[in-house]
Amino acid sequence: MSQVYADRRIRLRDRCAAAGNAAALVSRPANVRYLTGGAPPGAVLLVGPEPGADVLLRPASAEGDPLDGRLDEVLRQQRLPLGGGDPAVAAARLARGFGADGLAVEEHDLTVARHRSLTTAAPGLRLADLSCAVEQLRVVKDEDEIACLRIAAEIADQALGELLESILVGRTERHLALELERRLVDHGADGAAFPTSVATGPHSGRRGHRPTDRRVEEGDFLSVCLGADYRGYRCEIGRTFVIGTAPADWQIELYELVFAAQRAGRESLAPGAEYRDVDRAARQILDAAGHAATAVPLTGHGVGLEIDEDPQLSPSAMGKLDACVPVTVEPGVHLPGRGGVRIDDTLVVRQEADGGPELLTITTKELLAL
Amino acid sequence: MSQVYADRRIRLRDRCAAAGNAAALVSRPANVRYLTGGAPPGAVLLVGPEPGADVLLRPASAEGDPLDGRLDEVLRQQRLPLGGGDPAVAAARLARGFGADGLAVEEHDLTVARHRSLTTAAPGLRLADLSCAVEQLRVVKDEDEIACLRIAAEIADQALGELLESILVGRTERHLALELERRLVDHGADGAAFPTSVATGPHSGRRGHRPTDRRVEEGDFLSVCLGADYRGYRCEIGRTFVIGTAPADWQIELYELVFAAQRAGRESLAPGAEYRDVDRAARQILDAAGHAATAVPLTGHGVGLEIDEDPQLSPSAMGKLDACVPVTVEPGVHLPGRGGVRIDDTLVVRQEADGGPELLTITTKELLAL
Repeated sequence: MSQVYADRRIRLRDRCAAAGNAAALVSRPANVRYLTGGAPPGAVLLVGPEPGADVLLRPASAEGDPLDGRLDEVLRQQRLPLGGGDPAVAAARLARGFGADGLAVEEHDLTVARHRSLTTAAPGLRLADLSCAVEQLRVVKDEDEIACLRIAAEIADQALGELLESILVGRTERHLALELERRLVDHGADGAAFPTSVATGPHSGRRGHRPTDRRVEEGDFLSVCLGADYRGYRCEIGRTFVIGTAPADWQIELYELVFAAQRAGRESLAPGAEYRDVDRAARQILDAAGHAATAVPLTGHGVGLEIDEDPQLSPSAMGKLDACVPVTVEPGVHLPGRGGVRIDDTLVVRQEADGGPELLTITTKELLAL
Repeated sequence: MSQVYADRRIRLRDRCAAAGNAAALVSRPANVRYLTGGAPPGAVLLVGPEPGADVLLRPASAEGDPLDGRLDEVLRQQRLPLGGGDPAVAAARLARGFGADGLAVEEHDLTVARHRSLTTAAPGLRLADLSCAVEQLRVVKDEDEIACLRIAAEIADQALGELLESILVGRTERHLALELERRLVDHGADGAAFPTSVATGPHSGRRGHRPTDRRVEEGDFLSVCLGADYRGYRCEIGRTFVIGTAPADWQIELYELVFAAQRAGRESLAPGAEYRDVDRAARQILDAAGHAATAVPLTGHGVGLEIDEDPQLSPSAMGKLDACVPVTVEPGVHLPGRGGVRIDDTLVVRQEADGGPELLTITTKELLAL
């Protein structure tokens, strides 16, 4: 595995060198993990002018970390002494020691105060902006990364499937969410990919709803959104069910609408498709039915080492999909006071010749009455 | 409750005005919550030159939020339109509209990239540093805040007490952690205050240990650290137990040592005590027993709307405790390969005349063999 991380660092080094910077400081935890295989709390990665100069700097602490086991064993590590302060500051001093005059830093991650402390600690070192170079490298996944996402999706499908077999009426959103998270871990997840959302009745269909003490009632819509973290890779699945023997007409109608929007989004996933065209494919179906006013900012996003990463599938997003980019497609409608529907899948963009978009979250999208 | 938040904003406004800034932009979520009663995701607070000018700016989103119910209902709110971008940018434009020439921002929270976007959006507006002004206001708690912490501690005590009555041998760290988190919610917590740590055998005694699949075995030390979030206020309790009928001699010895260090820390809590003296009281007992090499950076910290806030009880910390400051006291020793002990309480600093430090987490600190 070490070679994978070393190759990723080489790609980053090449980008930096092309921009005239001899070294780069990576501070964003998901980016550190992408380039090293691990992300000990507070650690930063200094990518030097040649491979031997790369070093992971860790804060003072007597603690180990379960992720350490997957850390690139070839990469040099340096642990700061007690009272040694911010590893990013130590990295800036090291970079100056290389004779580097330019150090590219992640200006979208470093705070103004922290950036200033680097300038103070390493005068004469010119700080440039690495910008989202590592995030850009992360957009297209390799097959090992996709394999992790596939397992994460299987785990989420299993957890959700078990929930559907249990009695739901009378249980609170909070308890259902906790039970789902326990089941994720039971099935081998390292944890939940993000806080599990369970929304009942008037809460249903809200994106990112935080579970409350409301109990499931007959006639409710129940929308659930969960995901597993498997070796750092995070997937997402969302489904909406109806509680009781038969859904009401308005529920069937709304469900079919969101289902159609979600299908349109899924079917528009292809290498070369504009991000905003995928968003529009789903969004225009909801807009045409009069739901533009309650629309959400995006109808999907990339997933990987973070649950919400590039690309963003939104009206103003610029760019085109590539093959091997995993994204969610997750339109929804929430009618204030009544509830709503969300349907959310994780898929991998694939060439038409390879069978088109690969659906990772395979739980049925039929409207189930539970 | 509105008046509490309005008064807090007045104190902040006074500080800003004294520093020559007519307005302040608060972006750190815990600080927004302290000043408004709620913290909708992505919201920022603009504190204007007079109370009527204060406004909470929220990102475009059709979603509500359970915390909204506690939001100061007098405070003006503004929701950005879809595609309206960063609320902080909108706040900077508003501030320029006040005729404010100086806007104080949280440079320890804003990234370099976000700070630059404010400058670009509101040319002519001078950005100053609010620094940790809100964090400083937050250090001393009022009795309502302490009441929330007291309830949070009771919940954590209950969850821990129930765990001790169940069978532990053979269960994994992950499952015990999930069960504790479920029990926290059962007893009325809004959630866990931080990821629950359960550490068995060789993992025991590690600060912030992330639960693994290791199972509890006879003869293990078992250390547990958990906390409840109650209305945003977060407490912390940590205990170490021994599994089986009788602890080994080295376990008793190590436990007594950490217990003595923790007691020394607790007993040194008093208004006027230097932060570092509290740290030293606990630390010197561990150092004298030969554990300086495995020492952790701090032996305690403030708690409140964040689980780790000011003050830091560490060797280099500057400052003195006040009455009504809640802190943890949590020394520990971890012997690599063998395990260790941590004991962690949340207490409120009180005057001697008021009975001295108020212990919020009351679970016994006797060495229990389970």
